Amino acid sequence: MGKLEYVIDELVTGNRILAREGVVDSFGHISVRHPNNPQRFLLSRARAPDLIEPADVMEFALDGTPVDARGRAPYLERFIHGALYEARSDVNSVVHNHSESVIPFGASNKRIKPIFHMGASIGHEVPVWDSHDHFGDTSLLVENMDMGRDLAKLMGKGATALMRGHGATVAGRNIRHAVYISIYLEVNARLQQQAMQMGDVKFLTAGEVDNVIARTASFGINRAWENWCRRAGRPFHVE
Amino acid sequence: MGKLEYVIDELVTGNRILAREGVVDSFGHISVRHPNNPQRFLLSRARAPDLIEPADVMEFALDGTPVDARGRAPYLERFIHGALYEARSDVNSVVHNHSESVIPFGASNKRIKPIFHMGASIGHEVPVWDSHDHFGDTSLLVENMDMGRDLAKLMGKGATALMRGHGATVAGRNIRHAVYISIYLEVNARLQQQAMQMGDVKFLTAGEVDNVIARTASFGINRAWENWCRRAGRPFHVE
Amino acid sequence: MGKLEYVIDELVTGNRILAREGVVDSFGHISVRHPNNPQRFLLSRARAPDLIEPADVMEFALDGTPVDARGRAPYLERFIHGALYEARSDVNSVVHNHSESVIPFGASNKRIKPIFHMGASIGHEVPVWDSHDHFGDTSLLVENMDMGRDLAKLMGKGATALMRGHGATVAGRNIRHAVYISIYLEVNARLQQQAMQMGDVKFLTAGEVDNVIARTASFGINRAWENWCRRAGRPFHVE
Amino acid sequence: MGKLEYVIDELVTGNRILAREGVVDSFGHISVRHPNNPQRFLLSRARAPDLIEPADVMEFALDGTPVDARGRAPYLERFIHGALYEARSDVNSVVHNHSESVIPFGASNKRIKPIFHMGASIGHEVPVWDSHDHFGDTSLLVENMDMGRDLAKLMGKGATALMRGHGATVAGRNIRHAVYISIYLEVNARLQQQAMQMGDVKFLTAGEVDNVIARTASFGINRAWENWCRRAGRPFHVE
Repeated sequence: MGKLEYVIDELVTGNRILAREGVVDSFGHISVRHPNNPQRFLLSRARAPDLIEPADVMEFALDGTPVDARGRAPYLERFIHGALYEARSDVNSVVHNHSESVIPFGASNKRIKPIFHMGASIGHEVPVWDSHDHFGDTSLLVENMDMGRDLAKLMGKGATALMRGHGATVAGRNIRHAVYISIYLEVNARLQQQAMQMGDVKFLTAGEVDNVIARTASFGINRAWENWCRRAGRPFHVE
Repeated sequence: MGKLEYVIDELVTGNRILAREGVVDSFGHISVRHPNNPQRFLLSRARAPDLIEPADVMEFALDGTPVDARGRAPYLERFIHGALYEARSDVNSVVHNHSESVIPFGASNKRIKPIFHMGASIGHEVPVWDSHDHFGDTSLLVENMDMGRDLAKLMGKGATALMRGHGATVAGRNIRHAVYISIYLEVNARLQQQAMQMGDVKFLTAGEVDNVIARTASFGINRAWENWCRRAGRPFHVE
Repeated sequence: MGKLEYVIDELVTGNRILAREGVVDSFGHISVRHPNNPQRFLLSRARAPDLIEPADVMEFALDGTPVDARGRAPYLERFIHGALYEARSDVNSVVHNHSESVIPFGASNKRIKPIFHMGASIGHEVPVWDSHDHFGDTSLLVENMDMGRDLAKLMGKGATALMRGHGATVAGRNIRHAVYISIYLEVNARLQQQAMQMGDVKFLTAGEVDNVIARTASFGINRAWENWCRRAGRPFHVE
Repeated sequence: MGKLEYVIDELVTGNRILAREGVVDSFGHISVRHPNNPQRFLLSRARAPDLIEPADVMEFALDGTPVDARGRAPYLERFIHGALYEARSDVNSVVHNHSESVIPFGASNKRIKPIFHMGASIGHEVPVWDSHDHFGDTSLLVENMDMGRDLAKLMGKGATALMRGHGATVAGRNIRHAVYISIYLEVNARLQQQAMQMGDVKFLTAGEVDNVIARTASFGINRAWENWCRRAGRPFHVE
């Protein structure tokens, strides 16, 4: 398998895992920066993640222009991905989703914070982007680069952001990292919600969050990846 | 496949999807207006949605009279469907269900409102029909046209209504639309319930709801439909 | 299939359905009064419900004495069943379970009441039996006829009772009826719990409960039974 | 099958069951004391529990030193296991997990206590170990014997402990016992969380807890084990 072919296969696996683990349903998407050209990214045509095949994967310029569409209709919200690749050279994979436990936080003034070590990779606190602040009444979708850049600006150097009335966006250093953060963002939100009903919550300390992030390397992520591949019926490649 | 045969196949698929996605259990039903005669509608005989085959589908006059029963026992509550088709020329498919997250709202004075963009198609607020108001102590079932018309009147031009102590009814422009709204009504209720436990909820603005509804066209719905067909083990037809 | 053979087959199906629908896990059991001798009942040997085969079904006298054990170890709590058959000629099937949503009610002073029409068959209110009241510190299990009779006395003419720190017991007129009530007792508890978090709950009126119970006949129950048989991988017999 | 071979097979089954029942996800582990040498224990190489095969099982000295690694990478947190075997001759199997319902309790000042008879084996109250108390800001992982011994000290003679911001540890007299406690610790936490939302909770009395623990013998545990084996697709061995 060539390098590009391998990355596309990995992207298909990422889509299937996110579907299997309940992070995306019929909507939501994951992209990867092009392995041979940092000014391009790869993202499926508009299709439910659990159905995506290699032939669905399209190439885009960072401004969201399809390079060779061949009649395939792109996701409207590809600008989320392009704007993050444009702003962040450290980001090589982006997930956008509507996972269920994060939506309620996006509609409240409570912030998601790491409640257990697996959740530390979401960062010290997950900010909320409200499209209404700068764009007023919209359909809430990130439908142009202005909106994408506004979201990327709010994320700053962070790994995660919620989107009010919409969902979440996650930025990782590669596909496995972005999927890992997305899955544990959902789990952390679910657990935090339960803990908040019991009274004051002891979150991780800032030092603990930093220590866990420094430790979250490919060794641990690959252990989960092997398991998720099996659950999603996808081959596992040792990296 | 002829037009009628196609619609019946689509209706079977709608039943199976509603079952697979947890909107109906052993009870609940979905109908479609007859493609060749707007004064008729198609609805299965009384059977659990996940078991329905084309031969189960019966034809009814709008007042709920079976056209050619051939020994098949109809659902008692077929009047929900007939009354909506009678009152609303824009409605071509109706779902009645007892999906779990909507029941608690029907028993409270809190109203379901769109909390994320996928929920906007339920309308600005979901009204609650209480059979007790005009019919007193009943078995809560819509067992005649009077009750069906009373429910249809409460729905007005809307897409959704809860029924106190009973469930919900959804009206769509076609089968896929009615299924789509039914599924996201359940999801929206589940998420709203969680958000309400965290304090004040920022719902979508009225303008946002209108914008999302204007955008909810077959392109997006079909993306979900393809995914739901696969999950329900049914063939997907491009429309 | 002879009458006894048929009832045993139905009992196996009841066990499998209760397991598939999450009413029992590795523990819990369902019995049926012997079709040829009202002073006997049929109940599996001590085994997880989802594994039970016809050869596991044992015959018991109403006081819990095995008629022909052939080395098979009975459930300790068979006295729950015997005491109800002894006290109630209208009862022909009994379920004992630890279904998850009923346990919290058994540990609180809130009572389960019908919140939707499917829940009406549980009765107007579900009483709670506390073994501690008459028997003090025990292992909470109903391990003799005294305890069984005490529980049966609390149930009176009702269909359901919770057992504090333990689970629930359901009495039905036949296997399908007892399974039906058990499943919707769990669903009703789950929905009520959610509704209680939203403020005051509008339960069914007493008249509505009576009307639904009067209507809950084999026609509706069999519709669910057909569906549950398919989900549990069991043949469906029309009754 | 020889004695060691049998124990390794049982350990593989324990891993698969914990995964199937939702007690572990891609992380978490179970060990067993070596059947021929009480100064050793058996634990898989670092791999997701649902994927573990007999060849993954490694042997360790009580201080966590691998006896014959053959290139296999061990779990970092093997010290949890070693420290408990070192301190407790009654313990022959240890589970460490991040099961979802226990995490919120570890982050609150509410304690898990038995709410139903199946939960009694967790002990009278589940203590919480906070790594921060003696070790300050860490990655929360038990990465050396000092931390392992500190945790074992807090557990004392008990069967369970939560770990703040991390998960739980369970000690049993054999594999089946440790798995049984782990599963019902999760269930008990889930049910207690629901009950606490309804107001004051009637927990089991101290005498009831003692009575149930005295009764929790292999007869009952094996009934569950047979069921869990089937669900996990593993052969069941009568013990």
